[in-house]
This record gives sequence, C-alpha cells and structure tokens, in this order.
Amino acid sequence: MKHVIYVVGIGPGSIEHMTFQAKNILEACDCIIGYNTYIELIRPYFPEKEYIMTGMTKEVDRCRLAIEKARTGRSAAMISSGDAGVYGMAGIMYEVAADYPDVEIKVVAGITAACSGAALLGAPLVSDFCLISLSDLLTPWETIAKRLEAAAAADFVVCLYNPASKRRAGHLQRACQIMLRHQEPNIPVGVVHCVGREGEKTEITTLGKLSSMTVDMFSTIIIGNSQTKIIAGYMVTPRGYQLS
Amino acid sequence: MKHVIYVVGIGPGSIEHMTFQAKNILEACDCIIGYNTYIELIRPYFPEKEYIMTGMTKEVDRCRLAIEKARTGRSAAMISSGDAGVYGMAGIMYEVAADYPDVEIKVVAGITAACSGAALLGAPLVSDFCLISLSDLLTPWETIAKRLEAAAAADFVVCLYNPASKRRAGHLQRACQIMLRHQEPNIPVGVVHCVGREGEKTEITTLGKLSSMTVDMFSTIIIGNSQTKIIAGYMVTPRGYQLS
Repeated sequence: MKHVIYVVGIGPGSIEHMTFQAKNILEACDCIIGYNTYIELIRPYFPEKEYIMTGMTKEVDRCRLAIEKARTGRSAAMISSGDAGVYGMAGIMYEVAADYPDVEIKVVAGITAACSGAALLGAPLVSDFCLISLSDLLTPWETIAKRLEAAAAADFVVCLYNPASKRRAGHLQRACQIMLRHQEPNIPVGVVHCVGREGEKTEITTLGKLSSMTVDMFSTIIIGNSQTKIIAGYMVTPRGYQLS
Repeated sequence: MKHVIYVVGIGPGSIEHMTFQAKNILEACDCIIGYNTYIELIRPYFPEKEYIMTGMTKEVDRCRLAIEKARTGRSAAMISSGDAGVYGMAGIMYEVAADYPDVEIKVVAGITAACSGAALLGAPLVSDFCLISLSDLLTPWETIAKRLEAAAAADFVVCLYNPASKRRAGHLQRACQIMLRHQEPNIPVGVVHCVGREGEKTEITTLGKLSSMTVDMFSTIIIGNSQTKIIAGYMVTPRGYQLS
C-alpha cells in the first residue's frame, strides 16, 4: 500500500480563498507540514493537527520530514501558499519522493498570486500572459533576462513573482530596463501587496514608473501589454471582443 | 449607490474545486448569468436561483443582460469557468460596464485550467511559464505564432488553451511546428481532457508526438521545457533545488 502525501495549495492565505478540496484534505489529515509563515496563516482553522514547521530555504528538509511522517502511517499534507504547482512545493516533493517507491504524491491546486492579484486589479490577465520569477536563487539571471526580453518582445502581459528581497536589490530595476526596450513606458502596471492577507493593497502605475515603486517578497506585479488600459480605475486587457 | 456585479470563476466545474468566496457569493446573489454549459455545471448546487443563459459567442449580450438585471436592484453574478480573469468574462464585463457609472464590477478568482490540469499531471508549471490560447477568433494568428516562437526560444513551459475546435483544425499542428524549431521533440507534454468533469483523463506524450494527439476545446495542453522530466509517471519541471 502506498503512503499518500498531499501537496496542498492554500491560496493567498485566508480560508475564503481556499477550495473545498484543499480544506477537506487538511481537515482529514493527521499532520500538516510547511514553512512557518504559511502554517501560522492556516493554524487557526485547523487547531487540532500535528504541525511540522521549517524555515525558508529548507524545502528539501521539509519534503524529507513529510516522507518520514507519512511512512509512519500518519496521513500528511504539505502546504504551499498560492498554488503548490506554481513556484510551490509540488516539484521538489516529487523529486525527493522519487527515492521512495512506497510514497505517492498528489497535488491539490490553489489560487496562485497572479490570479488573486489580477482579480483585485481588474482583468489584466484575460489574454496571453507569462509568469516570471525575479529570484535568481534557483534560476540564473541570464535565463530570467532572456525570458523577460522574449515576453516583452512578443507583447505578453507579464506577471512578476518574487520581485525583490533584501538579497535581490536592483532586480526589478533591471527587469524594467529590459522590458522598456520593447514596450512603451505608459503601459499600465498593477502592484499588489499581501493579497488576501493583512495589509492587502493595490497600486496602479506605469512601466516607466515601476522601477521607483517600493516592492518586497510579498508583492506581485502585473505588467500590461500594448492593449492594456485603465477603465474606472481598474486595469483591463481587452481580449478583442467587438462591443457594438 | 452602485450596483455591484460579481464575475465569479467557478474553477473546472465540480464544487470541490470552487473557493469558499465563490460559493458564498453565488449563494448570496439573486441571479446567476452565464454560458449554458457552465450554468448546467453549477445549477444543482444552487437550485433556487434565477438563471440567465446565453450561447457561446454571445459574451457582450451576456454582459448587457447582467447589467440590466443588476440595475433593477437584483444582485447579479456572472460565472466563468476556471478563473474569470484568465480567458474569461472579467475583461469584457469591465468594458461593457464602462458606459454605466452606476455599475461596479468585482472579480472573484477561481482555479484556471493551467493549474487544475497541472495538479493532475504532476508539477509541470513550477518554474516560469506562459499561457497561450490557440483560438484566433479574437487574436490574429500572427500574434499567436509570435508568442509561441518567443516562449519556445526562451525555454518557457507553455500551457495551451483552446488547442482545437471544429473551426480551428490544424492550429495545434502549426503550433508544434513552431515550438519544434527551438525545443527537442522528446520534451514531455501533458494533455488533460475535461479537468474536474465527467470524462476527466490525462495523457503524457512528447512534443514530437503531440500533433498526432486527439484534442478538442475541452483539452488543456502543457508543454514542458528543457528541464522537464517524468518521475514515477508524473510530469515535473524541477525548479533547481539541490537534492543532496
């Protein structure tokens, strides 16, 4: 019999953005494993569970702890903020579990920051778009730069994850310089801070002004394309319907 | 006082993939507006509502009907499958409502097919990725082709929406030809049919074999990048963590 580990996307944080499937699985499991900050977000809703927490950058350890726990017969769920499959724990969990044929991984999708952020800004992602993380901890900056350039040149809407951290000062400025080679400075940009959490805030700016905005690791940025416009204060990328 | 119209992403279809926020709003509203197929998916869960249905390609009419209804004082929710903000009704709703200063639009995010499909396939979207629709009803094929080329050249994982319909025979084949200029034919590809609905099915193939697969408007395709691999039958794009 296989030991199943669920990797559950909890959405941006509050229970109202979680799916029924995610809540049902967390309610049914014995043990919940995750990064400290995300455990604290959900603990009030599931107070009776065994919790295992690890710090950031301890992703591989976290997977091994989940596997150990599952193999003792305890049902285990690993949580990930947003969607576990989008810059989340799902990938590394499959990789670590590859050495354990008695363990099976099942992913439960959640609302990723691109989607929860877009809903607050209006409808900026209604046409083709890219997700690009500006963190070069795991991806070389040259690859990130190439993707930014390709996305801007092909007029994709671009959603930036991890736009800044203490160790990555200047990445957003470099990203803006690359995109401005292909896109106009007056293209609308939406910045969302702390989606679905305390301190949630949205700001609308332009690509030309983006590099002077204050952002951190809890910010999500959506850069429009040549068609994106502002309607009644909301950011909208028309898909091309004829209105009359 | 403003009349609020909610544009609600219901996820792939079954109630378990809906968020609590989406369900609460649909439960609280008087009238639900949508495309026939999606109304039939949710009607069993909210039997007491007034329903307004229109056919496909009647998106602008649907928005006007929602506005008329809201302005009579009835609380109205427009539904969209997946995420209303990703190839959904959110954008056109803002555009049509722009003529009505007494109407305000609020978007409620849902699980889009890229995310619900990825969860079934494994973890193919864990790194940077693009969403591209192959429908040229609203976007010229030249723009679609340019985006496919850019995405493949920059080694993005690519999720294809609307890969085929009766009117779009051959689009998937042309897309594969473009991507094969930059990516190897052995790159893993996942095809998901009818996510979260009756007939749900996943298939794993390769980019070289994708053009001979049978797909339709209910299929979602995820084309890996140069790093994507198959682990225990699942499709995984490693993000770059060191395992040892």
